[in-house]
Amino acid sequence: RGIRVGYTPDVLTDATAELSVALLLAGCRRRSPLLLSDICFYLALSASGGWTTWKPLWMCGYGLSDSTVGIIGLGRIGQAVARRLKPFGVKKFLYTGSRPKPESAAEFEAEFVPLTRLAEESDFVVVTCALTPATQEMCNKDFFSRMKKTSVFINTSRGAVVNQEDLYNALAHGQIAAAGLDVTTPEPLPTDHPLLSLQNCVILPHIGSATYATRSTMAVLAANNLLAGLRGEPMPHELLL
Amino acid sequence: RGIRVGYTPDVLTDATAELSVALLLAGCRRRSPLLLSDICFYLALSASGGWTTWKPLWMCGYGLSDSTVGIIGLGRIGQAVARRLKPFGVKKFLYTGSRPKPESAAEFEAEFVPLTRLAEESDFVVVTCALTPATQEMCNKDFFSRMKKTSVFINTSRGAVVNQEDLYNALAHGQIAAAGLDVTTPEPLPTDHPLLSLQNCVILPHIGSATYATRSTMAVLAANNLLAGLRGEPMPHELLL
Repeated sequence: RGIRVGYTPDVLTDATAELSVALLLAGCRRRSPLLLSDICFYLALSASGGWTTWKPLWMCGYGLSDSTVGIIGLGRIGQAVARRLKPFGVKKFLYTGSRPKPESAAEFEAEFVPLTRLAEESDFVVVTCALTPATQEMCNKDFFSRMKKTSVFINTSRGAVVNQEDLYNALAHGQIAAAGLDVTTPEPLPTDHPLLSLQNCVILPHIGSATYATRSTMAVLAANNLLAGLRGEPMPHELLL
Repeated sequence: RGIRVGYTPDVLTDATAELSVALLLAGCRRRSPLLLSDICFYLALSASGGWTTWKPLWMCGYGLSDSTVGIIGLGRIGQAVARRLKPFGVKKFLYTGSRPKPESAAEFEAEFVPLTRLAEESDFVVVTCALTPATQEMCNKDFFSRMKKTSVFINTSRGAVVNQEDLYNALAHGQIAAAGLDVTTPEPLPTDHPLLSLQNCVILPHIGSATYATRSTMAVLAANNLLAGLRGEPMPHELLL
């Protein structure tokens, strides 16, 4: 008899959606550059006298009002992101994926478009798809070259969805405004990785699901799977292959 | 005849609300400690070997799901903050101010409570009130001592609403979990200010309204005020005393 495998679906949807929005908001004010919450930067700024009287465009970034948001992968997390961003005044949601999902899209009046159009029209691109052979390095040179110079790219799915060299080039040469990444290849990035040298790239250590509540729910689910398995009963969430 | 004064009302509501949410999301994941988007921290973490295999509570923070959010000052910005936070799964909104505002509160089913109860019950406190003699240093030792150890304090209004020494003590002694400040007294803070030494305090250089769109709208309004004033006509927005 094979080994039975339990898993913990759904529990991290809210936490990951929340972090995606946090990264997006950090990313959109990061241009100019602004390292949101970066105390090193605040100190450098104060000490250098760079923060003096009010100037109209000092530290300016982009807001969500009247923006177009493109979501790659309108699954549970993608929908949860769209639901949270809607009241920020987003004008239009676009999404792409393996097929249209009219039921999921209706709540946001999101339009199903090809990846190329999503890249061209979105002010914010949020990647929340699964990593599959079809999505591997889907965000590459061609993709970034179609994005607007003022657009922000967010990835909270898997690092390998992105060709990191192409992303680096797009950020370094101003082809896109900024990026926010919770995932990279590899993790952690080597400390001399070029992405870490950029002023317009926010990188987090894969903490999408890192809230106490989520991790606690995960632990309870895992324990219940285990107990059911030991008793020879059906698991609450069993991976059936 | 006196000097006519024009101003630019409303234009910064969306941008400031957006930044308040950004600070809140940064603040709630900052405990443990996590400096959201702090590259210095990411580098230190990778280099020290502190980021190794997955650990259940590593870098954990608090999420908004099922939380209580308390808003001090349910004016335009306070309402815009509540509207944006609602789809994050907030369970209950509380608010306080000089008087109940049932029309403004209805959209969020927000309950008007005294400041003390707001401090005691909120998981997130967001200050968006005006600075007046009544609100000056309203967030003081008594206020912070009533807050929960797991709660996060956000101020995007004016620095003087907070007694900063009391806030420092509350953060340093773990009376509250974290704080996010877009405003301080003075601005900028001296580089040796104790608040800047804390791991659980996110400080921004007063950039609430710093989006290109907002500043552009402000500039157009100011120019129209000026032109009308020069022509001796009524200004679109004139400060009448």
